[in-house]
Amino acid sequence: MEKMTELKNAAQVRLFALNSNRPLAEKVAELLGLPLNECTVSHFADGEIAVTIDESVRGCEVYVIQAVSDPVNTNLMELLIMVDALRRASAKKVNVVMPYYGYARQDRKARSREPITAKLVANLLEMDQIDRLITIDLHAPQVQGFFDIPVDHLMAAPTLIQYFLDQGLSENVVIVAPDHAGVNLVRRFAELIGGAPIAIVDKRTEDNRTAGGEEHIPDMIIGDVKRKTAIVVDDIVDTGHRMTASAALLKKFGAKDIYGVATHAVLSGEAAAELQASDLKQVVVTDTIKLPAAKQFDKLVQLSVAPLIKGALVRIHNHESIHDLYKLPAHQNDQ
Amino acid sequence: MEKMTELKNAAQVRLFALNSNRPLAEKVAELLGLPLNECTVSHFADGEIAVTIDESVRGCEVYVIQAVSDPVNTNLMELLIMVDALRRASAKKVNVVMPYYGYARQDRKARSREPITAKLVANLLEMDQIDRLITIDLHAPQVQGFFDIPVDHLMAAPTLIQYFLDQGLSENVVIVAPDHAGVNLVRRFAELIGGAPIAIVDKRTEDNRTAGGEEHIPDMIIGDVKRKTAIVVDDIVDTGHRMTASAALLKKFGAKDIYGVATHAVLSGEAAAELQASDLKQVVVTDTIKLPAAKQFDKLVQLSVAPLIKGALVRIHNHESIHDLYKLPAHQNDQ
Amino acid sequence: MEKMTELKNAAQVRLFALNSNRPLAEKVAELLGLPLNECTVSHFADGEIAVTIDESVRGCEVYVIQAVSDPVNTNLMELLIMVDALRRASAKKVNVVMPYYGYARQDRKARSREPITAKLVANLLEMDQIDRLITIDLHAPQVQGFFDIPVDHLMAAPTLIQYFLDQGLSENVVIVAPDHAGVNLVRRFAELIGGAPIAIVDKRTEDNRTAGGEEHIPDMIIGDVKRKTAIVVDDIVDTGHRMTASAALLKKFGAKDIYGVATHAVLSGEAAAELQASDLKQVVVTDTIKLPAAKQFDKLVQLSVAPLIKGALVRIHNHESIHDLYKLPAHQNDQ
Amino acid sequence: MEKMTELKNAAQVRLFALNSNRPLAEKVAELLGLPLNECTVSHFADGEIAVTIDESVRGCEVYVIQAVSDPVNTNLMELLIMVDALRRASAKKVNVVMPYYGYARQDRKARSREPITAKLVANLLEMDQIDRLITIDLHAPQVQGFFDIPVDHLMAAPTLIQYFLDQGLSENVVIVAPDHAGVNLVRRFAELIGGAPIAIVDKRTEDNRTAGGEEHIPDMIIGDVKRKTAIVVDDIVDTGHRMTASAALLKKFGAKDIYGVATHAVLSGEAAAELQASDLKQVVVTDTIKLPAAKQFDKLVQLSVAPLIKGALVRIHNHESIHDLYKLPAHQNDQ
Amino acid sequence: MEKMTELKNAAQVRLFALNSNRPLAEKVAELLGLPLNECTVSHFADGEIAVTIDESVRGCEVYVIQAVSDPVNTNLMELLIMVDALRRASAKKVNVVMPYYGYARQDRKARSREPITAKLVANLLEMDQIDRLITIDLHAPQVQGFFDIPVDHLMAAPTLIQYFLDQGLSENVVIVAPDHAGVNLVRRFAELIGGAPIAIVDKRTEDNRTAGGEEHIPDMIIGDVKRKTAIVVDDIVDTGHRMTASAALLKKFGAKDIYGVATHAVLSGEAAAELQASDLKQVVVTDTIKLPAAKQFDKLVQLSVAPLIKGALVRIHNHESIHDLYKLPAHQNDQ
Amino acid sequence: MEKMTELKNAAQVRLFALNSNRPLAEKVAELLGLPLNECTVSHFADGEIAVTIDESVRGCEVYVIQAVSDPVNTNLMELLIMVDALRRASAKKVNVVMPYYGYARQDRKARSREPITAKLVANLLEMDQIDRLITIDLHAPQVQGFFDIPVDHLMAAPTLIQYFLDQGLSENVVIVAPDHAGVNLVRRFAELIGGAPIAIVDKRTEDNRTAGGEEHIPDMIIGDVKRKTAIVVDDIVDTGHRMTASAALLKKFGAKDIYGVATHAVLSGEAAAELQASDLKQVVVTDTIKLPAAKQFDKLVQLSVAPLIKGALVRIHNHESIHDLYKLPAHQNDQ
Repeated sequence: MEKMTELKNAAQVRLFALNSNRPLAEKVAELLGLPLNECTVSHFADGEIAVTIDESVRGCEVYVIQAVSDPVNTNLMELLIMVDALRRASAKKVNVVMPYYGYARQDRKARSREPITAKLVANLLEMDQIDRLITIDLHAPQVQGFFDIPVDHLMAAPTLIQYFLDQGLSENVVIVAPDHAGVNLVRRFAELIGGAPIAIVDKRTEDNRTAGGEEHIPDMIIGDVKRKTAIVVDDIVDTGHRMTASAALLKKFGAKDIYGVATHAVLSGEAAAELQASDLKQVVVTDTIKLPAAKQFDKLVQLSVAPLIKGALVRIHNHESIHDLYKLPAHQNDQ
Repeated sequence: MEKMTELKNAAQVRLFALNSNRPLAEKVAELLGLPLNECTVSHFADGEIAVTIDESVRGCEVYVIQAVSDPVNTNLMELLIMVDALRRASAKKVNVVMPYYGYARQDRKARSREPITAKLVANLLEMDQIDRLITIDLHAPQVQGFFDIPVDHLMAAPTLIQYFLDQGLSENVVIVAPDHAGVNLVRRFAELIGGAPIAIVDKRTEDNRTAGGEEHIPDMIIGDVKRKTAIVVDDIVDTGHRMTASAALLKKFGAKDIYGVATHAVLSGEAAAELQASDLKQVVVTDTIKLPAAKQFDKLVQLSVAPLIKGALVRIHNHESIHDLYKLPAHQNDQ
Repeated sequence: MEKMTELKNAAQVRLFALNSNRPLAEKVAELLGLPLNECTVSHFADGEIAVTIDESVRGCEVYVIQAVSDPVNTNLMELLIMVDALRRASAKKVNVVMPYYGYARQDRKARSREPITAKLVANLLEMDQIDRLITIDLHAPQVQGFFDIPVDHLMAAPTLIQYFLDQGLSENVVIVAPDHAGVNLVRRFAELIGGAPIAIVDKRTEDNRTAGGEEHIPDMIIGDVKRKTAIVVDDIVDTGHRMTASAALLKKFGAKDIYGVATHAVLSGEAAAELQASDLKQVVVTDTIKLPAAKQFDKLVQLSVAPLIKGALVRIHNHESIHDLYKLPAHQNDQ
Repeated sequence: MEKMTELKNAAQVRLFALNSNRPLAEKVAELLGLPLNECTVSHFADGEIAVTIDESVRGCEVYVIQAVSDPVNTNLMELLIMVDALRRASAKKVNVVMPYYGYARQDRKARSREPITAKLVANLLEMDQIDRLITIDLHAPQVQGFFDIPVDHLMAAPTLIQYFLDQGLSENVVIVAPDHAGVNLVRRFAELIGGAPIAIVDKRTEDNRTAGGEEHIPDMIIGDVKRKTAIVVDDIVDTGHRMTASAALLKKFGAKDIYGVATHAVLSGEAAAELQASDLKQVVVTDTIKLPAAKQFDKLVQLSVAPLIKGALVRIHNHESIHDLYKLPAHQNDQ
Repeated sequence: MEKMTELKNAAQVRLFALNSNRPLAEKVAELLGLPLNECTVSHFADGEIAVTIDESVRGCEVYVIQAVSDPVNTNLMELLIMVDALRRASAKKVNVVMPYYGYARQDRKARSREPITAKLVANLLEMDQIDRLITIDLHAPQVQGFFDIPVDHLMAAPTLIQYFLDQGLSENVVIVAPDHAGVNLVRRFAELIGGAPIAIVDKRTEDNRTAGGEEHIPDMIIGDVKRKTAIVVDDIVDTGHRMTASAALLKKFGAKDIYGVATHAVLSGEAAAELQASDLKQVVVTDTIKLPAAKQFDKLVQLSVAPLIKGALVRIHNHESIHDLYKLPAHQNDQ
Repeated sequence: MEKMTELKNAAQVRLFALNSNRPLAEKVAELLGLPLNECTVSHFADGEIAVTIDESVRGCEVYVIQAVSDPVNTNLMELLIMVDALRRASAKKVNVVMPYYGYARQDRKARSREPITAKLVANLLEMDQIDRLITIDLHAPQVQGFFDIPVDHLMAAPTLIQYFLDQGLSENVVIVAPDHAGVNLVRRFAELIGGAPIAIVDKRTEDNRTAGGEEHIPDMIIGDVKRKTAIVVDDIVDTGHRMTASAALLKKFGAKDIYGVATHAVLSGEAAAELQASDLKQVVVTDTIKLPAAKQFDKLVQLSVAPLIKGALVRIHNHESIHDLYKLPAHQNDQ
């Protein structure tokens, strides 16, 4: 059965996917009932990228879907070059759909003489004259403020929570923050899942203490987890160290089943193997980042954000509020 | 005894104070051994501000000290107008010392169709062509990334902690975050005071739950506070509600003495009276914001950031690292 | 009887009023047959402003009505914050209707080391990315050139003159400039009222002369005013000093009835009382600035610019020339 | 006798003259005791200009002297191209000395759909990244506000007045504005010459009245000129029509000797012949614009602004206030 | 027979011609079936230009046709001023059709301390906020990259080649580059005319060799031209020296008939006379530059680019690809 | 023997090398007698780059050496991130030394809907606020015009030519352009080597001809090469196809010894093997790009540009002309 798009003036829309997450783009296109438009992205032997757009975009509303995931720099340059080509080819508006915003964690100067690369990325995109950014679960919501163009900041939490509700896993749960920075995210997740209590992994062995032969102070769990189903919630699961360590600690403190949840599955290095071998029962993520076979593992559950993106694109293009994209109370809707 | 400035080329320096926190500016000037330079800031009957600079600033390195505290908009405009005048008067560099960055809490879109006013303030300052911002304890460190000019982000924590050390109050303490967002700050404070444990006020009565007649879920303390000296740490104490409520809860959960700590003492509305009447033993703040007599109260302890600013100005002006401004391990030095 | 708007595509229009002059905005909305759209502008106890727009503005042509009158800085910040919110909320175009442009008199460096605050305001608005400014009777027409965006500069003179024509006051009149800067304005007013002669108050006691014990040179009237109806015309009546002094001088030189006219009624300080007690028979102004009860007085006649603004909005929105907004010869139409 | 420059670090200074007013530039250079540096400005047969700078300017403070007088567009492009070359050649600072600012009279929209060319010129210069503008007697002081870079606005009035004082012509004089717009300028001139009275030529035959067969209303003089020495003061004398007409009217109203004064001698078309044949006794101007032999005439007195420019350059370069450039009360010093 | 325009929404289009090449603009307008809209461009006696647009352009798509040919600077300023007026008059889009891009040959620093005036022109146009540039045969295609706005770069080669095909002149021809820089252009021309061989005038008497009494090395022809019809192809024919010298050399090397071809007929100085007296049989150019009678000569053949521009405007305005504007293989279509 | 730097104020200089060509940077540092300053550039498992500068750069003149060679995108991002960090760390000036400018060949739109990536790279660098670019042999000199900041464009030709002079290879040589675009470069090379003749490989099998079964037209050599030493000169040798094909053709046309010359040795894919197996006797390149062992081959001669860069840095830093960097006639010195 062919799905019909709900986009107004769909003839003016062009939807392009670059190379970082073509499967997600294809799902979005299918849900919209639109084809992905043709562009040729070549990678030459000397490492340079060449882009040619294979059909006219004059006067069109263009949506480019590209996650800035590994290889981060190449994927970012693909995007910047594509936007340059679109602009010179007289596209009316260039909207960038970036399911995963690379470098988002470098969002402040944590030490002297560091860059703020998340702002650099924002500056590169604005310099390139994109008209809008659509992204999902930024590491810090303040990154929206790195832009002066409109940013539509979507959230994957309802998608992730629905999974737990569908599994009947909302009773006797505790939502766990794997470090101090994630408490806000965890509090919101707990509310959405039905008012669960929270706990925090209190990581105390800061590097300034390990030096000098001081005695080791073990990590603690703040909050009660005993005999509960623990859901460790993070925005990104990268090396997996934090999540596996949290799971081990939770187990030690008496948690029953332990789940890991994250929107963005970076899974770099040995993450897949470590998570598979961990105390986690499942690791629930989305498809904002394309996972090659080597990064997949039995405990991994991957949910798709394609319906979320499709819903946002339709509303944005039709100039409707995306406020009601989620069946959620208004105040929890970021943008 | 007259203090001599350690500034190189001090003859090229001009130091101006606008109206929001002249006492602090005077202390800084005294520590530097420099006079405050003369400018006339008039407020007309129709509400307009007029600025005239009373001595030449051609080719000078100018430092303007102005907190953006209540009246926030007027103080901000004073600053913007002053910078316009300095630039047109051929100042070589305009460095803004903003001990308190107003609107810093509006740093993201928490709901649909909100502004990001902290970024607007950054844009206003950059449009006005300031060369550098020197500020203290931004509500979120990401606000640094709202700027493309250099930001020297100072921290008051060592000043505040020294007070507790001097009072012999570093044993058997627990550092308490009054809400989920402040856990990072509290964790760092705890490390600096000598590795204290932390606790978190878990505020659960979110507004989306109070509607609909649901039963009230009381706030919780996550973490152990019984018979401990509790220090509630926040960056800003504004209405005082959060701090007094935290104190009451801490008392209920068995904390011994309870102290409130915050860098910025906004103390709006009835804050002074409420804090005085609260379960807090003392409220320790700095002078980033000038406190009129009406906002002062017996339990208030106000420490000065003038030595911190003076130390930063000397290093910045002399092109020396501000890394060693604090006697602290390197990784905790923000900038 | 309900008025119907003449706006094309009125469904795409959003009309917002901020706090400085809501009565005028309501009149304009009523004349347009449109509701004022909902936004929440909160002023917190600490002086910060928070804005939330209560309905979607995606893809809309937005008109924001805000005079930058006392409290000037607060009203300006309300506007800047609102525009930031509108832009981030994906408004298509943000048009600012500013009946009174605060700081317009600070339009040049009159002395060394002064700002040009009228340009600063223009820069703030352009940085905030407004698309168009609609304003009335700028203090100097050159302020249009402070902007690179389109400025629709309306003039209240026809509205004011109609009042005198309606009162039968166009015979044996002399139009009087209260100082040297206003002669151009007065000459135009005189032509529009039917070719009246002009006179000028020649204010000679410049401050550089009062010092040093020099003898006082009294102000003079240049031009013939004896036994004539004198209409003193200014763009702004602020403290009222210049207008009451002009009236006294005119009376001394034999003028019959003396009227004061100004587009913008700032009326700061004791202006209302002074004007009421003056030799002026009436003071005729418009409602570009909202007048609280305390600034109203018996001799005051306040005419509304709502029809002028409504006429301009319709033409601007419909992409029609505003050239024929006035029943006036073409060359006198500024814009 | 060789004059020594008073410039600090004169070795870092480069002084270039383009083609519009080389004699003035040479005078300034001589007063500074510096050579004019070498650059080649070629005009090709096809109308294009080519600039080559013949010596290194790396790291130098450069001053380029160029009036934007007839041929206005060519002189402006010479300047813009030179600045482009200087910037690319790594000049440290590019300061433009523009004795006459062409297009300054197009400083506002006087009718619908007009440009504001004076702002365009400012935008062109700022886009080209000049660091500072030094100019003389802008047609409207608001043009300073068209710039965001520092503008040093010099005034020729003291130079011009000194001439009259030297001629013993300060008694029984009246200073006359040749139209309504010039009253401010005339009032200031009158104060500087010792407190003279003023008069205004009230030009009433506006073009909207001449049509339609209305009877002609003759121009009037407002103010007393009988048996006085009348000095008609304008900033620019262009076609000379306004000045010759003013002289004729003044003669009719009984003025004794009539002098014309203007900073900028544009003298386009038949101005020289008309002024020579007029009722004016002398026309006193400066050399901001180079006058070819054909534009010189017996009644013309040309004073040099070279000492004024030299004085300003020394102060600006040495980072000293230019406030005391004139022996005048402070408040009359523009910048 | 009246031609009907193929433009969609033609009522929204405004077509203006400035003074440099009105005949070409009129041809384009006639082909489009649209009138040229009215604007008044006055040149005052003092050299300043004033522009007034005589009908409303609010919300319109405007196309301004202006070649930047001799007088180059005046024509450029006419354009910049017109764009300023259009923008302030609320035009929706300002598209500039510049058949000849003046200063295009100054596209790089060939020696130390030269400007890059072709970039300066691009910067002036972008600063002035034009939305699109439509131009023909830029001297170097890299000049497109001087812009960040869309540039539609048309090519006259098919028009010029059609002439030779129509004359039956495509057999036994050799296409000749008059210098080393033009080989690319010539190679493409040769392909388009049907695969002709090429030759190059190898100009060896570089100026660094003529000095010092070295023996003269005569220019050479690289490639075989004997008994062939030689077509010398250049983008610009300016003084004509290069083309006449090439013709003389070709004749010496045995070429049969010699033709000169160039898109842009600058023909400065004595070019017309020299070309007429040369060994060239014909000089084939287009009308991108208006040729006064004095620049016309018997051997000159002038073809019109009006159909090319008309075709481009229709496609651009209708948001169609201009790829198929030429009946040529895709890869040869520049943009 | 330790070399002493000739840099003035060397204490203010910081010299950083990123990862693309550290050996070249080390040679430059050694020639300058300066150390390379310390910075940490980490590449995380997820592909993100993190930069920390390990010593203060406040108030310093910084030079960052980074070629944008394979991996192009990663090397470019390393540079952009480093510059962001330097700027935020209050460096006074950030000068980028980019021996090889990646993406330089994408300098124009050769077909519809292509980007101009060389301009994008320029925009990225300017957005990042670098103060100066120092680069070598840009593919097209027009790329200088992609920048508005100063670009110091160095040329390697004298270094390369010196090699041939040292080998006694300047007699009976012909300099060969491997395609039409390179004729200018070759002509200049020929002049510098002593006035050699040139030849051109006339590549005629354009892709529009190969389709459709047309007979193949073989590539030609235009110009005489028989029994001569042929030096094929290009700016970049990438895949090596063009150079090996040129060599084969030259051999066929009777050239004696054949040398390949290029500034930038990209050598992608199988280039090393192909060049080794070709008719070329030697391939002479520079070290603008670091060559791993796998790209080295017997016929390769690699000359260092370190002395060239060192000479330029000293002159630029000392504000001296780089005009005399080469012992060459003035007109051949690009910048």
